[in-house]
Amino acid sequence: MGKMEARQAPHDRLGSYLSADMDAVNALIRERMASEHAPRIPEVTAHLIEAGGKRLRPMLVLAAARLCGYGGPYHVHLAATVEFIHTATLLHDDVVDESRQRRGRPTANLLWDNKSSVLVGDYLFARSFQLMVEPGNMRVLDILANASATIAEGEVLQLTAAQDLRTDEGIYLKVVRGKTAALFSAATEAGAVIAGASAAEVEALRTYGDALGIAFQIVDDVLDYGGTSAVIGKNVGDDFRERKLTLPVIKAVAAADAAERAFWVRVIEKGQQAEGDLEQAMALLARHGALEATRAEALFWAAKAKTALMALPGHELREMLADLADYVVARVA
Amino acid sequence: MGKMEARQAPHDRLGSYLSADMDAVNALIRERMASEHAPRIPEVTAHLIEAGGKRLRPMLVLAAARLCGYGGPYHVHLAATVEFIHTATLLHDDVVDESRQRRGRPTANLLWDNKSSVLVGDYLFARSFQLMVEPGNMRVLDILANASATIAEGEVLQLTAAQDLRTDEGIYLKVVRGKTAALFSAATEAGAVIAGASAAEVEALRTYGDALGIAFQIVDDVLDYGGTSAVIGKNVGDDFRERKLTLPVIKAVAAADAAERAFWVRVIEKGQQAEGDLEQAMALLARHGALEATRAEALFWAAKAKTALMALPGHELREMLADLADYVVARVA
Repeated sequence: MGKMEARQAPHDRLGSYLSADMDAVNALIRERMASEHAPRIPEVTAHLIEAGGKRLRPMLVLAAARLCGYGGPYHVHLAATVEFIHTATLLHDDVVDESRQRRGRPTANLLWDNKSSVLVGDYLFARSFQLMVEPGNMRVLDILANASATIAEGEVLQLTAAQDLRTDEGIYLKVVRGKTAALFSAATEAGAVIAGASAAEVEALRTYGDALGIAFQIVDDVLDYGGTSAVIGKNVGDDFRERKLTLPVIKAVAAADAAERAFWVRVIEKGQQAEGDLEQAMALLARHGALEATRAEALFWAAKAKTALMALPGHELREMLADLADYVVARVA
Repeated sequence: MGKMEARQAPHDRLGSYLSADMDAVNALIRERMASEHAPRIPEVTAHLIEAGGKRLRPMLVLAAARLCGYGGPYHVHLAATVEFIHTATLLHDDVVDESRQRRGRPTANLLWDNKSSVLVGDYLFARSFQLMVEPGNMRVLDILANASATIAEGEVLQLTAAQDLRTDEGIYLKVVRGKTAALFSAATEAGAVIAGASAAEVEALRTYGDALGIAFQIVDDVLDYGGTSAVIGKNVGDDFRERKLTLPVIKAVAAADAAERAFWVRVIEKGQQAEGDLEQAMALLARHGALEATRAEALFWAAKAKTALMALPGHELREMLADLADYVVARVA
């Protein structure tokens, strides 16, 4: 591999390696998002799906399947499945969060309306079920149906847990699995299963996807208090202003004395925020080493992801997946 | 059968005949709508699912399976599946329509919020996929996944077609299949397939469900212009005030002269309604015999449903299903 390629980000290297497969996935996505009579469907879907997302989830399916020696056609269906589930989730999330921007562009709920986002999201969910049925593999169906339920349960849980100081790290992990890790792990596990991989390989890839997704989300939490706007693509403190009980705050709350607890109750549970509160929150995080501890946790999950890969045979794709785990936490390492 | 029973409505007779199965369905529904960590899920679901719906869709699954001689356990899973899909659809519909009442009670979006309705609906969709996977029958999965896509496409289509005077009877039928008939026909078809019925029996029950659902919806359209508030449980003219292009209006528009067309453009497309417009609309429907023609169409579909049943062996359940088709159109017959 040349110097130039070595400097590429791992997901770009995965994209190059899997480019023929990804072309097939993109063609299938375009075909299946069509609707003869309801042009609103491809309009809304295209707005989101062609907005330059990294297609990380479909790439994880393809990489897992190829790494396990798959030669059939169905990894393409499963890759399109996870992208449709992801896109449907984004459409509904933006309605729930009343978001106005995603990936630097106006959201579908802003450009069209909430109705279109809800119903086109439902359509994409339904299309994803059609796609996942096509390979005719019951184990794959189990994996993807269970992931769908975990995702939806995590979303509802977040609704009630996000501003509730009783939320502990166990509940946080359930929310994070719902938000990110369940689809990552379903992607890698389904890829391995469709390839007919051994039980040990399937479990290794499932663990990799799960740990990668958790690391991914924890890094997001750290950066929101510790990154720069240029790196994170949003403003420092957005989570605080949105009263999100992220992992650094959960750790600081667990270590809080009575006065600190009263502060968190006011700013997170009651949402009564004033000038200087973000600075105060940062000071409390620093006092309890909460950002450091959260950062360490991200590194733990990334290491777990890489360790899991060791159960798999040596392969260029295995190295790329390992590099991807490093890359995800590089912004906080 | 005694006189008393003969006077019972057909869905009550189905309910009595299938009561052991329905108990199992209700137990499974309660079990699967639980969520250890997100109590919001069973709260919202129970509000809707225990609000005294007729459980018509799960009964159609059970009746079809039993009519075809099924003795296994999985018709219960499929019955719970269609009830979950139906409930999820209602939750999302109420958000999209900004409804405040359903079945005489405040809607979930009013009691909780739109967020809960969207996310709990997603959870029920996901749970329905888990349930439909459990029997391990690929044909059943095909049927239910396709029905889900038809439902979602019909919903989006309705969003854009409902106030567009170019909507013709072909598009109307697609919307109606999405709203009602696709789930009815998936219910009866899946019941037959899980029972291992012959191709002719499967097709008969699919056709029955489809035609029954279409008749059901067309009757609703007629009653909105021609029923009394006591019979229809809502006010005469609600569809008109909500600018819905229902079948009577589509027929009147197709027969309209230039002045009449201008009227429909104003009241439906532009939504500029004034005192006396409902009466004018009723007069135009009468002038073109639109209500009569729509009523005849409902009877046609009910007859088609009954005819389809003739391909099935004689059975008490077959008679109840035939009576159900009569019952659905009895309000306009």
